[in-house]
Amino acid sequence: MSEDRSEIGKKTFEKITGDIGRRFLENLREVAPDFADYLVEFPFGAIYSRPGFDIKTRELITLSSLATQGNANIELKAHIKLALNSGVTREQIIELFMQISVYAGFPAAVNAMLAARDVFKDLDRLE
Amino acid sequence: MSEDRSEIGKKTFEKITGDIGRRFLENLREVAPDFADYLVEFPFGAIYSRPGFDIKTRELITLSSLATQGNANIELKAHIKLALNSGVTREQIIELFMQISVYAGFPAAVNAMLAARDVFKDLDRLE
Amino acid sequence: MSEDRSEIGKKTFEKITGDIGRRFLENLREVAPDFADYLVEFPFGAIYSRPGFDIKTRELITLSSLATQGNANIELKAHIKLALNSGVTREQIIELFMQISVYAGFPAAVNAMLAARDVFKDLDRLE
Amino acid sequence: MSEDRSEIGKKTFEKITGDIGRRFLENLREVAPDFADYLVEFPFGAIYSRPGFDIKTRELITLSSLATQGNANIELKAHIKLALNSGVTREQIIELFMQISVYAGFPAAVNAMLAARDVFKDLDRLE
Amino acid sequence: MSEDRSEIGKKTFEKITGDIGRRFLENLREVAPDFADYLVEFPFGAIYSRPGFDIKTRELITLSSLATQGNANIELKAHIKLALNSGVTREQIIELFMQISVYAGFPAAVNAMLAARDVFKDLDRLE
Amino acid sequence: MSEDRSEIGKKTFEKITGDIGRRFLENLREVAPDFADYLVEFPFGAIYSRPGFDIKTRELITLSSLATQGNANIELKAHIKLALNSGVTREQIIELFMQISVYAGFPAAVNAMLAARDVFKDLDRLE
Repeated sequence: MSEDRSEIGKKTFEKITGDIGRRFLENLREVAPDFADYLVEFPFGAIYSRPGFDIKTRELITLSSLATQGNANIELKAHIKLALNSGVTREQIIELFMQISVYAGFPAAVNAMLAARDVFKDLDRLE
Repeated sequence: MSEDRSEIGKKTFEKITGDIGRRFLENLREVAPDFADYLVEFPFGAIYSRPGFDIKTRELITLSSLATQGNANIELKAHIKLALNSGVTREQIIELFMQISVYAGFPAAVNAMLAARDVFKDLDRLE
Repeated sequence: MSEDRSEIGKKTFEKITGDIGRRFLENLREVAPDFADYLVEFPFGAIYSRPGFDIKTRELITLSSLATQGNANIELKAHIKLALNSGVTREQIIELFMQISVYAGFPAAVNAMLAARDVFKDLDRLE
Repeated sequence: MSEDRSEIGKKTFEKITGDIGRRFLENLREVAPDFADYLVEFPFGAIYSRPGFDIKTRELITLSSLATQGNANIELKAHIKLALNSGVTREQIIELFMQISVYAGFPAAVNAMLAARDVFKDLDRLE
Repeated sequence: MSEDRSEIGKKTFEKITGDIGRRFLENLREVAPDFADYLVEFPFGAIYSRPGFDIKTRELITLSSLATQGNANIELKAHIKLALNSGVTREQIIELFMQISVYAGFPAAVNAMLAARDVFKDLDRLE
Repeated sequence: MSEDRSEIGKKTFEKITGDIGRRFLENLREVAPDFADYLVEFPFGAIYSRPGFDIKTRELITLSSLATQGNANIELKAHIKLALNSGVTREQIIELFMQISVYAGFPAAVNAMLAARDVFKDLDRLE
């Protein structure tokens, strides 16, 4: 039932994205409230909560897709943080983007590396 | 005749893009005068002025293409304004980008939603 | 409720896609049954059934996105047929792909034109 | 004047594309006559005939763009032939696609290499 | 040393790709011998052999990138087989492409699903 | 031998990229030291140093790929400068991006034109 789907979505979304997600969803609700609901319900309620992969692996899959697209900088930075939260190490994130240089080219890989650098700097500053 | 094409292009370009277009074209002419001419003549003189679709529908088609590309943020914001000018409502713009989440994925849709949010904020500020 | 969402999805999917959709979904279910359910539930149950646009306009938006992507030939041909079924004319489909030449380049537009030609030929053969 | 542009376009199109272009344009005219005119007039009449680059260099630029897009196989094969006609050697075409592996990744480069292989085989068969 | 890199590359390439890789490399060598060397040396000698991820995880990353690109059908099918060889299950491959529907849209996911279906059918036929 | 490859790479990288490259590589080494090595060794040591094309032509090929991708703004601006350093004129860069409007659409071309404008302004300011 979609209330369940919504509930599962909200729980999964909050568990995975915490504060990052909350602020992002508020911004999105300002302009697209229904879409904000779908974003929680489908990606998180329907897909991310599926048992097929653990969250760590799902984040690797997502980072690969975003880095390949080369133009999803906001989402890429958000998912770098989510990946770190899920237990992916900084070295693994760099390792993943290095592999992207083979499959999507060096520009896409460089963009992703520089996004990772920004995220790591922000996180270091907060400590 | 290309003077006609140019003339039709200039008229169509001005009618549709007004001030937005004027300033954009000035910037472009600084670096690429011939290209600025082509941009008026082909997209606007040859295509946008064709009777097959009204401007409102053409803007929906353009927004869909730009949102799908995910990396044409300047043009996307310009065309969000042009779409509003042509009679597309804010709700319809959001509705379109929501449909993009199906065909180009949520990152592309989110990028477009946030571009729309920025445009709406600018317009609200000007009132 | 998701049974409603599923039900709405199935009805919308069948209404819009008829036989094309049925065969496609059977192929998909062979390999990805859960995904076949999501494809009916989210794109059709959640998005296509929304009142914001009529089906004709939604098909224009979808065709623009697919033609821009340039690599979704199966879906593009399917949606050309769906667009025709929804009342979009052959001339309008050509008009749309002509506009794509401006926003995604001539190769993407040519790919789409040749896909349209194949679909029209198939349909003419069936008469 | 656009008759001049059309004339220049037709001459340039024929000079560069010969039989390949003729057959292609016939196919296109079946479904999109106006678009076939634009394709001759704008890419060839307005751009390819400009003096800024010789045809050989223009073909390198085009091949790079098409190989990067990764999904314009018909146009890619056509332009491989046009490049050879303009004096680009087979080795240079392979060299170009090798460079693409850096900027767009190995999959795009491999697709282009295999397209080149098909074109070379066809040409060898005709001798 | 690059002989080491070449040696590591050849061993890794053979271990991971077996017959699939051998035939593919022969085809490639016909037209681009240097590039065939680079393809073994850089992707496999330099990247795939790095310890940061096991081969199974590297295949998930690669499949995500290829499915997102939507136009690398040959490589996608090859890597589906390589993933299966490395221990990824058919269900996990389907699960991955389902996640792609969120990040790159349903058309890209559908393309990947149908490629997987073809690969599974071929493999079933060989048994 | 890879020390030779590394040495050739470093020499080629420095010759072509000078200060631009040095600062860029420092930034990259902060977060991805191995990747910084690969970036010098493969693109520059293996590909750019090959005799098939002079550097000027290689820059045209690279600019075409980057402009087509539409989202590699940092690399695009860097390569605009590298192209100028290699002897490509400002007019030729504009001419190239004009051709991109045909093959990748006007948005990609406009993005590239505005990047060129920024680079030219920076360079004029330094004089």
